[in-house]
Amino acid sequence: MSKSIDLKPKFEYDEQIAARFLANKGGAGGLPDFLGIRITDVGPGTMTGELTVRPELMTGIGNMHGGVLSAFCDHMLGCVCYPVMKKGQWGATTEFKINLTAPVTQGTVAAHAEIINLSRTQAVVRIDIVNEGRRAAIAQGTVTIRDPR
Amino acid sequence: MSKSIDLKPKFEYDEQIAARFLANKGGAGGLPDFLGIRITDVGPGTMTGELTVRPELMTGIGNMHGGVLSAFCDHMLGCVCYPVMKKGQWGATTEFKINLTAPVTQGTVAAHAEIINLSRTQAVVRIDIVNEGRRAAIAQGTVTIRDPR
Amino acid sequence: MSKSIDLKPKFEYDEQIAARFLANKGGAGGLPDFLGIRITDVGPGTMTGELTVRPELMTGIGNMHGGVLSAFCDHMLGCVCYPVMKKGQWGATTEFKINLTAPVTQGTVAAHAEIINLSRTQAVVRIDIVNEGRRAAIAQGTVTIRDPR
Amino acid sequence: MSKSIDLKPKFEYDEQIAARFLANKGGAGGLPDFLGIRITDVGPGTMTGELTVRPELMTGIGNMHGGVLSAFCDHMLGCVCYPVMKKGQWGATTEFKINLTAPVTQGTVAAHAEIINLSRTQAVVRIDIVNEGRRAAIAQGTVTIRDPR
Repeated sequence: MSKSIDLKPKFEYDEQIAARFLANKGGAGGLPDFLGIRITDVGPGTMTGELTVRPELMTGIGNMHGGVLSAFCDHMLGCVCYPVMKKGQWGATTEFKINLTAPVTQGTVAAHAEIINLSRTQAVVRIDIVNEGRRAAIAQGTVTIRDPR
Repeated sequence: MSKSIDLKPKFEYDEQIAARFLANKGGAGGLPDFLGIRITDVGPGTMTGELTVRPELMTGIGNMHGGVLSAFCDHMLGCVCYPVMKKGQWGATTEFKINLTAPVTQGTVAAHAEIINLSRTQAVVRIDIVNEGRRAAIAQGTVTIRDPR
Repeated sequence: MSKSIDLKPKFEYDEQIAARFLANKGGAGGLPDFLGIRITDVGPGTMTGELTVRPELMTGIGNMHGGVLSAFCDHMLGCVCYPVMKKGQWGATTEFKINLTAPVTQGTVAAHAEIINLSRTQAVVRIDIVNEGRRAAIAQGTVTIRDPR
Repeated sequence: MSKSIDLKPKFEYDEQIAARFLANKGGAGGLPDFLGIRITDVGPGTMTGELTVRPELMTGIGNMHGGVLSAFCDHMLGCVCYPVMKKGQWGATTEFKINLTAPVTQGTVAAHAEIINLSRTQAVVRIDIVNEGRRAAIAQGTVTIRDPR
């Protein structure tokens, strides 16, 4: 076996849905808007989002609230699956695990989500969250995919 | 071994800190305030918080955003440790895992956090999140505890 | 909300299958036999198994190999679901998360598994692993349940 | 931010310790020997191990026992950290999460572990497990690193 494993799933990828995400029309005041998430890149099985650190996202001791990072992960987990699902299918985040690896105090936070494994009924996704040149969080989760009823 | 395992850690528990959490003075506009989290019960190694479902917490399809539940978990993970830490110690959520088990559409969401294992340097915490009489999420996480420098 | 949350799922529970697990006829030389797992209690949505610490399960530094605890968890996750599944259904462990909380050096290791949430297609299970009166590991996982094809 | 995030930690890497792992002198009859794990590659912050599927590792229905994959993960998590730790330090797997993504029925199973984040006190590691050209499991875990007492 070679050192680096490249087993990227093959994706049918809907560019129209990708374009809708990139338009960032937003959630009309919901949690993603409060967090300030904007989608900056969409590829086959990948999606990148960013948010800007601002006072409302901090705790009293001057670090960004960990809940911002976990909510950001949850959001990206669901979103990355949409452009690769078949018409009418829907996805629901079933579970995820996140390691918080560095405090965030300023700048931009970028989350890069990638579908690592895709079956008929679920996607396993990895997420890297980066801030000021270092990893702020690392996550792995499962999205259940269902056919239309 | 008996069927039910009762190995509750023994806690030294600071009632003044507990009272501060129950006062719900809030985060002055931060994420916990956006989510509307209020602490309703504090015990030795346990803490219960609640939030009320409202339109800003929903997604476009009428379910509460999963990021609300994961941010709620992250918040409770850190908070439940404060009343049992020694003076000057601080805690940081290192990692957690959450299963989202039922959609939330209305009512109140309550999270009950319990420290299951406490060592000199970390707490392992379980969280049950309940809405309208059923479990909405189940989580398990680690809080690193550090002595003052 | 009361402090303690009791939302146990209701189970239809097959006592014949339970009895088969308790008979411990074993895996004819497989991993559960190498680990020495014996099922000691089965209830509606619960199962307890035990293994005895022995030299083959240790590492070079005299602690039980963490892989024993994680394999034990994986085994209990699948087993606890069988007595509550409908005839012809099968279960597969999809994912789990384990915290290793104390080294094991001697005695008996008991794992208590409990189905915390049961839907038509999956069970979420918690596991407590105890050794010499303290928790050695704490786990949470998902078992996917499928109808016969 | 570019699409692909490359934030590999810089490692001081002890080639002598790496060579010792590659010698595969084994655990003298313990769990790694029962599983048949052999280390096939060691790099700065990476390690690859393999095992061969054989009847003792299967369940009654002809798939490899999930416990083999989770024990394999646990083993690699600890091992990958040794060549990058300072003299006298020791590491202990604190927790990990594993998704089982495909059944294993034959051939070789290779696990590639990589340290994604390294601080003074902990390493966060990702593991990819591959069998017959597809992913069998995906994991993420934490190893606590301690200085000599």
